[in-house]
Amino acid sequence: MKLVPLGDRVVLKQLEAEETTKSGIVLPGQAQEKPQQAEVIAVGPGGVVEGKEVKMEVKVGNKVIYSKYAGTEVKLDGEEYIIVKQNDILAIVE
Amino acid sequence: MKLVPLGDRVVLKQLEAEETTKSGIVLPGQAQEKPQQAEVIAVGPGGVVEGKEVKMEVKVGNKVIYSKYAGTEVKLDGEEYIIVKQNDILAIVE
Amino acid sequence: MKLVPLGDRVVLKQLEAEETTKSGIVLPGQAQEKPQQAEVIAVGPGGVVEGKEVKMEVKVGNKVIYSKYAGTEVKLDGEEYIIVKQNDILAIVE
Amino acid sequence: MKLVPLGDRVVLKQLEAEETTKSGIVLPGQAQEKPQQAEVIAVGPGGVVEGKEVKMEVKVGNKVIYSKYAGTEVKLDGEEYIIVKQNDILAIVE
Amino acid sequence: MKLVPLGDRVVLKQLEAEETTKSGIVLPGQAQEKPQQAEVIAVGPGGVVEGKEVKMEVKVGNKVIYSKYAGTEVKLDGEEYIIVKQNDILAIVE
Amino acid sequence: MKLVPLGDRVVLKQLEAEETTKSGIVLPGQAQEKPQQAEVIAVGPGGVVEGKEVKMEVKVGNKVIYSKYAGTEVKLDGEEYIIVKQNDILAIVE
Amino acid sequence: MKLVPLGDRVVLKQLEAEETTKSGIVLPGQAQEKPQQAEVIAVGPGGVVEGKEVKMEVKVGNKVIYSKYAGTEVKLDGEEYIIVKQNDILAIVE
Repeated sequence: MKLVPLGDRVVLKQLEAEETTKSGIVLPGQAQEKPQQAEVIAVGPGGVVEGKEVKMEVKVGNKVIYSKYAGTEVKLDGEEYIIVKQNDILAIVE
Repeated sequence: MKLVPLGDRVVLKQLEAEETTKSGIVLPGQAQEKPQQAEVIAVGPGGVVEGKEVKMEVKVGNKVIYSKYAGTEVKLDGEEYIIVKQNDILAIVE
Repeated sequence: MKLVPLGDRVVLKQLEAEETTKSGIVLPGQAQEKPQQAEVIAVGPGGVVEGKEVKMEVKVGNKVIYSKYAGTEVKLDGEEYIIVKQNDILAIVE
Repeated sequence: MKLVPLGDRVVLKQLEAEETTKSGIVLPGQAQEKPQQAEVIAVGPGGVVEGKEVKMEVKVGNKVIYSKYAGTEVKLDGEEYIIVKQNDILAIVE
Repeated sequence: MKLVPLGDRVVLKQLEAEETTKSGIVLPGQAQEKPQQAEVIAVGPGGVVEGKEVKMEVKVGNKVIYSKYAGTEVKLDGEEYIIVKQNDILAIVE
Repeated sequence: MKLVPLGDRVVLKQLEAEETTKSGIVLPGQAQEKPQQAEVIAVGPGGVVEGKEVKMEVKVGNKVIYSKYAGTEVKLDGEEYIIVKQNDILAIVE
Repeated sequence: MKLVPLGDRVVLKQLEAEETTKSGIVLPGQAQEKPQQAEVIAVGPGGVVEGKEVKMEVKVGNKVIYSKYAGTEVKLDGEEYIIVKQNDILAIVE
């Protein structure tokens, strides 16, 4: 099964947060800051979205930084994804 | 009786949530997270909605992921449906 | 006396909620969920509303589902009506 | 003295609420629901308002239903009026 | 010194509220309802404001009714003025 | 060092508030109302800002009244400035 | 690794706040006001963003003042950056 995003939506997969603080303490998942880096898994077709032309600029495989409070978490086949609008992607990490 | 959605509205039917957690405990309906997967039952004609041209991209029978807090629950002939705007559908599951 | 709606407004009359739950208990009016089905009583002319062209798609006599929190309740000659914008009508029931 | 409304504004004068409930009890002004019927006293010229073309559709003397929470109450020569935007008028009562 | 309003701004000077209630009690300034009548002291040039063409319709010397919660109070040479956008002026009093 | 504002931004320097109330009491800075008069120090180029054409109407040296809650306070070389959008300037004082 | 901003986004690096108050007391990081001066590290391509044409006006290396509550803090290779929309940059410091 795969996710095919609509319009200007992009499917992201979060990159693993570093599990260890600088002082060497291993943090359990909860106590960590939510990492904002993710990999692009699928990209919508763009086009006219809410009456505005959107051109898709990210590609599958891009590492991106996305806006902390944006997106919808989705679970598919036990994997977690985040679906955001392209405009919530701030930058590509090269 | 059937629902004929107006404008950019789409009628969805939620897919059954898995009733069992990984540890094997059966959850009653309430305690389960609301599943976000649904099947498209009917699709509005699109066209100019709130002054913006909307082209319908989903089709009857598509399995879709929709935005958690979107939509209106509707009961017809004892069946429950959700009516959302197409823009609240995030992705098609293929 | 009759109501002649302006712009994209539609006058609705709520259809009676079923007074009996599945277990056979008769509910007084208060305890019932507000039914969302209504009949279209009058339809505004449409045209340019708030700077946007609106084409009216519902007709007098249509049974419709409308958005739960939308509309203004109006009493005329002891009868209760709801006036909604067409965009708050989600679907026609056929 | 008279009020000459600007743009898409309409001056209304509330019609008297019925002072007696169905059971025959006379209610003091406070306890009554604010009546939503009003008579049109003056109509603005319309034209471009907030960048949108507005055509005035109500006429002086029309009985109208207006949105419960809309409008500004104004007192002139001891008389009370309500000034609303035409878009807050829901329907004409004929 | 004088105020020259920009864009669709209008400088108003409040007209004195009647200091006496109907029962003849003289109210101190605080206890009175803020009067909504004002005289137009200066009128901006209009033109394109926030991307929308605005034509000025009020003139210096007009008595006007303005929206209760609109405007900014300004003190110049010990005199108090209110600066509003023309759209917050509801009607001219003739 | 100097501030070169972008788009429709304007750099203002507040004019000194009168330090003495009418009764002759000298107020410390805190207890005074924030003065709304300021001098224009620098003016952005205008042009298309947020998709809307903005023409700059104020000039360096103008005394202006600006909206009380608008703007961002900025400190540069120990001097305090306020940067506002031109639309938050209500009037020029001549 | 480097950040390549999308659309009208700009990557900033905060300039060091002066660590000493006028009275000579050295403040720890927390107690200091967040400095609003930053250096431009990378500039997005501009173009049509949310349906509006945006022309980029800042350049890499510019010292800028940005809006206090704007932007998203991002950590990359142990360095902290702020990503803002160009419209949240108030002025260039020359």
